[in-house]
Amino acid sequence: MIKIGVIGYGYWGPNLVRNFMEVSDAQVVAVSDLSTKNTDLVARRYPGVKTCNNAKDLIDDPHIDALVIATPVRTHFELADAALKAGKHVLIEKPMTETPDQSRRLIEEAERRNLTLMVDHTFIYTGAVRKIRELIVGGDLGDIYYHDSTRINLGLFQHDVDVIWDLAVHDLSILNFLIDETPSAVSATGTSHVPNSTENVAYISLFFDSGTIAHINVNWLSPVKIRRTVIGGSKKMIVYDDLEPSEKIKIYDKGITVTDNPEEVYKMLVGYRTGDMWAPKLNSTEALSEVASHFIDCIEHSKQPITNGRESLRTVVMAAAATASMKKNGHPVKLGQD
Amino acid sequence: MIKIGVIGYGYWGPNLVRNFMEVSDAQVVAVSDLSTKNTDLVARRYPGVKTCNNAKDLIDDPHIDALVIATPVRTHFELADAALKAGKHVLIEKPMTETPDQSRRLIEEAERRNLTLMVDHTFIYTGAVRKIRELIVGGDLGDIYYHDSTRINLGLFQHDVDVIWDLAVHDLSILNFLIDETPSAVSATGTSHVPNSTENVAYISLFFDSGTIAHINVNWLSPVKIRRTVIGGSKKMIVYDDLEPSEKIKIYDKGITVTDNPEEVYKMLVGYRTGDMWAPKLNSTEALSEVASHFIDCIEHSKQPITNGRESLRTVVMAAAATASMKKNGHPVKLGQD
Amino acid sequence: MIKIGVIGYGYWGPNLVRNFMEVSDAQVVAVSDLSTKNTDLVARRYPGVKTCNNAKDLIDDPHIDALVIATPVRTHFELADAALKAGKHVLIEKPMTETPDQSRRLIEEAERRNLTLMVDHTFIYTGAVRKIRELIVGGDLGDIYYHDSTRINLGLFQHDVDVIWDLAVHDLSILNFLIDETPSAVSATGTSHVPNSTENVAYISLFFDSGTIAHINVNWLSPVKIRRTVIGGSKKMIVYDDLEPSEKIKIYDKGITVTDNPEEVYKMLVGYRTGDMWAPKLNSTEALSEVASHFIDCIEHSKQPITNGRESLRTVVMAAAATASMKKNGHPVKLGQD
Amino acid sequence: MIKIGVIGYGYWGPNLVRNFMEVSDAQVVAVSDLSTKNTDLVARRYPGVKTCNNAKDLIDDPHIDALVIATPVRTHFELADAALKAGKHVLIEKPMTETPDQSRRLIEEAERRNLTLMVDHTFIYTGAVRKIRELIVGGDLGDIYYHDSTRINLGLFQHDVDVIWDLAVHDLSILNFLIDETPSAVSATGTSHVPNSTENVAYISLFFDSGTIAHINVNWLSPVKIRRTVIGGSKKMIVYDDLEPSEKIKIYDKGITVTDNPEEVYKMLVGYRTGDMWAPKLNSTEALSEVASHFIDCIEHSKQPITNGRESLRTVVMAAAATASMKKNGHPVKLGQD
Repeated sequence: MIKIGVIGYGYWGPNLVRNFMEVSDAQVVAVSDLSTKNTDLVARRYPGVKTCNNAKDLIDDPHIDALVIATPVRTHFELADAALKAGKHVLIEKPMTETPDQSRRLIEEAERRNLTLMVDHTFIYTGAVRKIRELIVGGDLGDIYYHDSTRINLGLFQHDVDVIWDLAVHDLSILNFLIDETPSAVSATGTSHVPNSTENVAYISLFFDSGTIAHINVNWLSPVKIRRTVIGGSKKMIVYDDLEPSEKIKIYDKGITVTDNPEEVYKMLVGYRTGDMWAPKLNSTEALSEVASHFIDCIEHSKQPITNGRESLRTVVMAAAATASMKKNGHPVKLGQD
Repeated sequence: MIKIGVIGYGYWGPNLVRNFMEVSDAQVVAVSDLSTKNTDLVARRYPGVKTCNNAKDLIDDPHIDALVIATPVRTHFELADAALKAGKHVLIEKPMTETPDQSRRLIEEAERRNLTLMVDHTFIYTGAVRKIRELIVGGDLGDIYYHDSTRINLGLFQHDVDVIWDLAVHDLSILNFLIDETPSAVSATGTSHVPNSTENVAYISLFFDSGTIAHINVNWLSPVKIRRTVIGGSKKMIVYDDLEPSEKIKIYDKGITVTDNPEEVYKMLVGYRTGDMWAPKLNSTEALSEVASHFIDCIEHSKQPITNGRESLRTVVMAAAATASMKKNGHPVKLGQD
Repeated sequence: MIKIGVIGYGYWGPNLVRNFMEVSDAQVVAVSDLSTKNTDLVARRYPGVKTCNNAKDLIDDPHIDALVIATPVRTHFELADAALKAGKHVLIEKPMTETPDQSRRLIEEAERRNLTLMVDHTFIYTGAVRKIRELIVGGDLGDIYYHDSTRINLGLFQHDVDVIWDLAVHDLSILNFLIDETPSAVSATGTSHVPNSTENVAYISLFFDSGTIAHINVNWLSPVKIRRTVIGGSKKMIVYDDLEPSEKIKIYDKGITVTDNPEEVYKMLVGYRTGDMWAPKLNSTEALSEVASHFIDCIEHSKQPITNGRESLRTVVMAAAATASMKKNGHPVKLGQD
Repeated sequence: MIKIGVIGYGYWGPNLVRNFMEVSDAQVVAVSDLSTKNTDLVARRYPGVKTCNNAKDLIDDPHIDALVIATPVRTHFELADAALKAGKHVLIEKPMTETPDQSRRLIEEAERRNLTLMVDHTFIYTGAVRKIRELIVGGDLGDIYYHDSTRINLGLFQHDVDVIWDLAVHDLSILNFLIDETPSAVSATGTSHVPNSTENVAYISLFFDSGTIAHINVNWLSPVKIRRTVIGGSKKMIVYDDLEPSEKIKIYDKGITVTDNPEEVYKMLVGYRTGDMWAPKLNSTEALSEVASHFIDCIEHSKQPITNGRESLRTVVMAAAATASMKKNGHPVKLGQD
């Protein structure tokens, strides 16, 4: 039985607690939050769980095996570092840390101590993203031409991170999971519409040497919620709409074939292929439940999590480069081979 | 009665002919197209209309008052220039020309001769775009924060222009019509997935000194058709979906208000305002019919068209700058005050 | 070359004329309409076509081989009867006539004279309905449990027929085409909300001895337009949405399997099966173009039209029975074996 | 503090428990369910709550003030009757009982003992239905022409009730809440596609003396989920789509006006009015939370619940009449003035 402490019971913490409660082999034994209002909620909902207003109590608690960190990003490094140094396994909310260097230090600390370090990139554990990965790996899509995602809504303005580090990190982690290639450069634009606030709208283009282009549109200030990714391949194309209740993934047998049309010389080099559309049945288990049991499984069997520190670091590197480009109005920033 | 000649009866020409046929005070007297297959179609559908396979015949025809040019972009300048020099009023398909300089020369030629020069930016004549303009000018939206449009589909690959000059020109002209401010710079990315072909996917960001940011997503290789623009204002926000059969414009009484939340210091600077949504009834006259009658009206009364040469030049300048930036992977390009 | 006369150039006539103009082996030679405003439109659009304001001129014209009747329902019988007696082949707008008896007389007249009698049940000629027929005949759906269609909008209030004879006739003809079984009884309800007007909303249930139930919801007074049919089979289910631009048919691998669940004795007799969804590519030729060429083909080769008089009669019989039941608030009306 | 016992922790019970846990002035003290698997779930989630496998223990428990009954319909009467006789206030899942007579006996028992008797018609407590009621009462819609609702999905086949008593009861209760008139008659059709099972598809028409017609389409065997009600009024019309995440209610300024059109005498008696559409902001509190606090409020202040026994009886009477008509293939059944 892995004993779990959860640090942070604000926006996402309640979902983590609820899901870890249902994992066999795990037990949530303590929850901390700076706000007593939040810890009161825990006490009312889960009378058997200890609460406190100080993360340090959990880090120091020798009965706790693993810590789940669901606090603001700027606190991630310090809390995770202390937790690892106290010998705890760690699951951190995305993004892992504020900088690539902080992520690298956590990875080293975890490796040195043989501790599980995992980042909660929830979307990687959805049936939808798993199915897309399966289709790409299986060659169904052919060459990937583009990956174009839109993730906008009237969202929580974050105090300490911009919209790239809040929303685009989801898309960067999905991209990292789907495409086995590191982008060579990134160009991003964005702006803030609130004085003294971080950027609330951003557009990111990622270039790959293979010819793939990826684009991410994120916005905290949209009147409508959109969660849609279009992936164009040379053989098939996918539309992934996360707001669809059942058919989240649609696979289109559409594309182009190069042709010559002697009669309309000025217009046509390319022929169109349009065929059936297909929406596969997806595993509908709640993704966070998969996250929770995968974390426990990795601890128990010393396995590398799918979204381990090294994988998550790649999204931090991309987010940092995107932010740097955004500060220069789209000036492209090269990405090293990490 | 204004006598009209139409040059080009390929993709868009048939729509122009059909609409000019219904305009009182105008008469389509001749249509030319390089392909006899196309001119045969004209002959069958409109027995009274002369056809020929040579644009020069129309340009030289002294009975023709005005020429409508619906040919590939690379021929626009030469044909329009000859038409103006032959004393004809001219309506050109968008984009006006391949370069800003060519556009400037046409503008000068038309002004010198007191001829009407108009560009068929059809969307400017839709009830939807007119209504959005009305709402912006009336102050309903407040300050414009962003203008984010997506125009993607499995489209005709063009031989002589890239997807910016084909699709994004629509959005640039709408932007130019809606926002009374010239962007100061542009950053664009894009790529081609067909050998020896122009870019078929592109992403454009336009920066305005006022703080507005505009973004355009265009793609000829999407399995689904999307025509959606989201406009965020400080007071209200608009979603314009051109594929909606009736409610093309939805106005959201949504936005943010700056607040202080002492309890969640790390998260909230901003409060949310969500209210009603409203979809106004729109004028549903076919836009191209408005284009046709506006052109005739401007000729008859020596009025400046809404989408005259000078206005259209601005979209050519923006498209040229976007292409230049795209060639440099998003490197920002400044836009002069034209 | 079959010479065609078209009687009626109101709502549907223009579409018929336009489509017959494109059929090789056919030539529209004359159009009549009571209104000179309408015949003026014909003259302007098709200078070579004769026009008149009297159907009799077309019926008597010895140069005309076939007549297309697109007039109000109450005139169908008289016009078609005269046309057949004048030796013309006849295509009538749906519904064929006001009563089953009138339809029977036209069928007999056409058979006696070896003339083609066809009714324009346009939907039978769509790629969507053809594909559904193919799936049902091929056994993909298994037993048909139900056929549930909704056809509502803010529609033209008809003067001489109620909403059953206007809208539901479409669904009755589709049902007749899809299901090789005559319903045994019908129960219908409906009402009028306009004084002295026919029923503008109606609900029809049709019972089949095999266990299939069909339901039709039609309404001229709906703020939104819906054209959706759900067909439940024992193996698969179909949703046919005629307003979808591309994926009009979706086939669901969903259904039930009878099971025993000893733990929830009070709740479960039935298990659920949910699998993939699939939207086949459909033939997208305009249905009315298929109608026009099928009519010409049947005349030239003395073939029975798919929607011949006998098939169409079945929809008239069903509509008459539905109307009778509606007048008695749903009291079921038996249907004979016609 | 009202002490609550919940009988039944199957499909709906967990939602009731969760919501009553959050009501101040109420405390869930005990939950019973026949299945230990279910009571084990309670014990794990709510360590402080007593569990048992016998409803009688809760009925007899003198510390319990009120009982919430979330068991199969056939047990409702017996359990509620015993609970009332034991002096408990009672909240029952819909439908109240299997027969109108049973409902009447519960109403009398509750009135005799001055106990609160409420039925959980959850939809009556949604922001959407409340807003529609407000619009109708305020006269915005004018005369109600029709109320047409569709409630279909691949649903739980119930063992003891048919689809009318399961799904249509929701629509009947909404109808009863919205329209201050008792229907005069009902005609219903339906059938079962599973041997020895109750009807899984049903269509109900309700006639009102005022001219309003209501129709309900319910189906447990649909591949897609639809929850949509269209309400046509003489002034405005409403589309209520419960599956829309935010704009559940759309109000259309559409309708008809009687006109004379001398030119198209055979076609037009009626003119169309199409105007704006408007989606008001709705209260988004979870309806079941409103149910829970309303029940407690009624107990504490001896108020009549909105969905009290008498109101709920009306839906039982309508459901019983609909079932009777369905057994006779739509033969209309009169409804008395209850």
